[in-house]
Order: sequence, then C-alpha cells, then structure tokens
Amino acid sequence: MGDRIKDIGEFGLIGRIQHLLSREGCVDPAVTLSLGDDSASFQPREGCEILVTCDSMVEGRHYLPGKMNPMEIGRRAMTMNISDIGAMGGVPRYALISLGLNEDTPVSDIEELYRGFLDVLRDFEASIVGGNLTKVDGAEFIDITLIGETERGKVIRRDSAREGDAIVVTGYPGHSAAGLELLLSKEHSDESIADHPLVQAYKRPTHRAREGKAIADSGLASAMIDTSDGFAGDLGHICEGSGLGAILYVDQLPLSDALRKISGKLRKDPYDFVLGSSDDYELIITCAPDHIRKIQDLIESLSNVLVTEVGRIGGDSHRICLCYPDGSEKDAIVSGWDHFVEGKRDAEQRNG
Amino acid sequence: MGDRIKDIGEFGLIGRIQHLLSREGCVDPAVTLSLGDDSASFQPREGCEILVTCDSMVEGRHYLPGKMNPMEIGRRAMTMNISDIGAMGGVPRYALISLGLNEDTPVSDIEELYRGFLDVLRDFEASIVGGNLTKVDGAEFIDITLIGETERGKVIRRDSAREGDAIVVTGYPGHSAAGLELLLSKEHSDESIADHPLVQAYKRPTHRAREGKAIADSGLASAMIDTSDGFAGDLGHICEGSGLGAILYVDQLPLSDALRKISGKLRKDPYDFVLGSSDDYELIITCAPDHIRKIQDLIESLSNVLVTEVGRIGGDSHRICLCYPDGSEKDAIVSGWDHFVEGKRDAEQRNG
Repeated sequence: MGDRIKDIGEFGLIGRIQHLLSREGCVDPAVTLSLGDDSASFQPREGCEILVTCDSMVEGRHYLPGKMNPMEIGRRAMTMNISDIGAMGGVPRYALISLGLNEDTPVSDIEELYRGFLDVLRDFEASIVGGNLTKVDGAEFIDITLIGETERGKVIRRDSAREGDAIVVTGYPGHSAAGLELLLSKEHSDESIADHPLVQAYKRPTHRAREGKAIADSGLASAMIDTSDGFAGDLGHICEGSGLGAILYVDQLPLSDALRKISGKLRKDPYDFVLGSSDDYELIITCAPDHIRKIQDLIESLSNVLVTEVGRIGGDSHRICLCYPDGSEKDAIVSGWDHFVEGKRDAEQRNG
Repeated sequence: MGDRIKDIGEFGLIGRIQHLLSREGCVDPAVTLSLGDDSASFQPREGCEILVTCDSMVEGRHYLPGKMNPMEIGRRAMTMNISDIGAMGGVPRYALISLGLNEDTPVSDIEELYRGFLDVLRDFEASIVGGNLTKVDGAEFIDITLIGETERGKVIRRDSAREGDAIVVTGYPGHSAAGLELLLSKEHSDESIADHPLVQAYKRPTHRAREGKAIADSGLASAMIDTSDGFAGDLGHICEGSGLGAILYVDQLPLSDALRKISGKLRKDPYDFVLGSSDDYELIITCAPDHIRKIQDLIESLSNVLVTEVGRIGGDSHRICLCYPDGSEKDAIVSGWDHFVEGKRDAEQRNG
C-alpha cells in the first residue's frame, strides 16, 4: 500500500510532483522560474499575444472516479483547457494546476493525474510551471489555468461571424455524451463497454488545437469556438456574440453509424446527442462559403478528422433554425451545461 | 430577498458579473479579449517578463463566512495573490477567477466578493479578464490566477540569498495569526473585537507589492519572499532554496505593543505569533548589510510601513538559529501551513 497524502504532507507532495515533472515534464528555455517560488515567470515571445483560460473539474460532477482512472481524468482536464486555447488559434505553453484534495487520496493517484496532464501537454512541449494544493473534505477539484500564445492579431473570436458565412464543424459532436450515457446505463454496464469507441470519446477526448492554430494562421475563418457546451449551445454563443442567427441542414449534420446504433439501443434521437450538451471539444468554424474547401484541405493535411459543412449564418438573430430535407423547419433548443440548473438547461431566453 | 444562484443559472450569473466588471472594473487597452470567449488575451509589454501565480481559498479552511463578509473574503483572496506577484518584484495586471459555488448562495454575495477583488486590483489598474464558475455541494472555493509583469531580468527569487546578507522584514509578522485567534476565542468574542487592530490585520490584510516592486527596481535585494507561510516558515524557504542558514536576533524582531498585550490575554508567547504561521503578507528581504539603510529609505518613501533588520544569513545550512540577548541560542521550529497535516506542521526535516 503506497503513501497517502496525509502521510507525506503538502510539502512532501509538492516534492513528489516536482520530482515527477523534472523527469517526465518538458523544459522550456523561456521559463525563467518554475514551481517553488511565489510566482512562476516566463519571457513572452516577441510580437506574440498571450491567451489565458481556466477550467475546473469537480469530482462527481465533471468526472466519475469509479469510471475513469486518474490518468484519464488528468488527460480530460488538460484537454478541455487545450481546446479553449486551440479554439482561439493559440498554442498552449504553460499550465498552473490548482488541486483540492482529500488527505486520504493515494499519492500515486496524484502522480497519475499529473502524468495525464503531461501526456497531452507534451505534444506542444508545454510545461507545468506552477500551482497550488489545498485540502478539501468533500469533493476533490482540479482547476487548471492554461497560458498560450498566438502571433499578434491572429486570435479568432467567437463574436465575428458574418451574415451568409458557412458553418463548418470538425469530427462527430455528440459522441462524448452518448459514450457517457452508455457508460452510466445499467443495462450496458459490462466490461466490453469500456472499449466502445463512443465511451473512448468520453474517456479520452481529443482536442483540435493543431487544427485551430492552422485555421488561425490561414486567416480563412471569421469565427471559431470549441463545442464544450454542446454543438447547438456553442453555435448559440457564436450567434449571440455576433448578433446573428444560424440555419442548420439536419441531413448534413455529421452522424456516425456508431452513434446511430447506440442511440437506438438507448432509445434516444441521435440528433439530441449531436446538438445537445457533450464534452467533445470539436471546433465550430464560420467562414466565407468559398473558403470551405480550403479549410477542409488544410485540416485534412494535418489529421484525418472529418470536416463537415452543416449550415449558414443567417435568418433571425439569436435563432438557430433546423431545416429538414422535407422542407420543414424547427427551432433548435439551445442547451448547454448550466451547473446551477438541474441537468441541462433550456436557454430559450437567449434565442428569442 | 434577492436572487440566489439557482434562480438565475450559470449564464445569468456570468451576465451579472460581466455587468459589474464593466461598471466597476478597470479597462486595460492591452487586453484584446476579456470574459466571454474561450480564452482571454492580452499583449505583453515589450521587454517584459510575465509572472503568474495561483492560490485557492476553501470555505471553512481558509476563510470563515460567519466571521468575514464576502467583500472582505474577496479582498483577502486577491491580496494573497497580489502579495505573491509583489514578492517577485512584479506588478499585478490580469486576474482569472475560478469559483466553486453552492446553488443557494445569494447572487449579491458573489457581487460583493467581486467588489472585494476589484477593491485591491484597482490600485494597480489591474483587471479581471476571465474565469470559471462551477457548482459544488460542499464547501465553496475561490481559486485565483493572477498574472503580473516585471521588467526583464528584474525578478527577485527566493533562492538567491548570500552568506552574510542581512535579513530585513516589513511590518509586524504575527498580527494576522493573533487577530484570527482573538476572533475565534470564545472569551473575547464580542462586538468590539471586530475593530481590534489585530483582527483588522486578519480581516483586511495588506500586501507589500508596491514596496516589492521598488526593491526589485532598485536591485538592492538578493532574495525576497512574502510571509504567507509565516515568518520562520518563509525564511526557511529562503534558506532551503539558497542552501544556507539564518541567525535571528530575537530582541530585534518587530513586536508591537498590541501583539504583546493580546498575547498576554491569550496566554501565548508573542514570539510564537511573530515566527509562526500567519497570513500577514509582509516581505522578508535579504541584502548586503550596507544596503539596509537604502532599502529602509526606499520603503519609507512609499509608505509608513516599518522595516526592521532582524538577522543575518549564515550559520548551519537549513537551520534557523534564534539568538537571545543573554547569549543563549535555540533552533526555530519552522512551521508553515501544511493543509494535509492537522493544524500546523513541524517541518524539522527541512531544517536539519
């Protein structure tokens, strides 16, 4: 039985983390001071713009310790922050990790959590430069601040979509939500479920930060956001920020065979997964219609992620209209994670 | 009865915070994107070094809701982060606020908390540029990431003290700890206690960020740290980082009449307060002995804070030796806040 946090104390735990980072982390020459002083410090590159984001995950609310191991939890927590930097067109560089921990937590779990952070930071040679540890008696929490850089003026905002722009989305929004539901469904909770591609989409989410940066560098997009609040929720943020509406062609929405099949088993409409709350960290991009092909080519040159044109910016302001092949129309219910309202919250007030 | 968080939801609360910040916060032209996108962004100044620190406060552990109002809690949380930036010689610029909140918390409490943040940020024209809100069922938490700037190469570290350096301290370390004990003591828990200067030192702590920056600019100090882990604990960090020891002259330690009097009432040795864990956010500065007077003059030119020479860097490595006027000596027990060990933790292993 290994050490628990209370056996080695805060300073002992800091020592263990520093040791792990020095062996397994990245060393960035621009970092002038890392863990172990009042603040970390680094030299920003000439002509850069600094991006900074933070996101929290609370045990039992954003992750399920029984369903994910500490390395998976670490990966997911860092991925959601990397996605935020990537959705602005930036490259992640420096992370600060603030943890609220129970004294009985095994030290090896914390080391695995950090290995999860490093596993996704390593692709960018990004480093963990600081943080904070504190004791909590109830639910543990992970709060990450991630600092990134872009070339000055290359940031892509969410509030700059233009009337008539095409709406493009990467990957398969909804996979993560369906995977979570599968993981939680009693009916299907057997060993084999863990390897299901949709469950993997939940447990090991990907980000599109490389793609986001390439799009930013290209200057082809008018607006961009990641789908951390769900496809319709985040398209809603673009519409709200830009003071416009959107039209989605339902038959063009990316829907995998896997999602179609699992939706049937779960007795759900697959489009509820595609449009609803889901932690997929895909990108929604708006662009002039004649840039669609260029964006698809650009992303294909980097990865094999699907890039789908799904609609147009236009119609009534703040309204997302779903167009069906038979010509019928319906308003999308924009739902996103609202942590203070039970379950998912209909945010019709934002739509009209 | 005003709104509670669950009445307006996460997005409603974000809206209220944005409204408050736009009216009462500072606008920095270097900020290119603030709250309301995936990340915030800003343009670093030419030739600057970026400092970044984070600190958490957990309800019931770092603050007592019944004993402090939300504005005081906000002030204290931001002050401890400003102190970390100041102890490096930096100027605070941008804050990100991550909150874990109960759904029943009144919205007005959160607004007051933000007013507390702004109250201390305003002195530096620093702004709140981002954050995160999440629901917790148990203890609420406040996690602040604060970003600062210094001129390149002006950062003062904790690990660069030199043999023979003088040790100088600002203000009266221990006031905050004594104030907290007074506040919690049943014997003295009456209305008038709230106005006691030591209780005020706990409830409205000051930072020495302006003084820290002036010292950094002057190049007079060899090492610097704030006393967030208590005087002996943080002097211990300097010794540990620098691979040296320290000698403290007990009769030179700053001890106010107020602390002496309250220690008597509390039946405590006043030097236990001065040396032990206390959230004072004073500065410990090491410097060549012939710089002491210059540092005192420099700080006096900015504020009326006391600056006291209290000892020398030297003696056995990693040992803090207390010298009494009668010539006797004693090792200081270096105690600092260790959140995972009950109460305060003797960290003798760090001292020998």
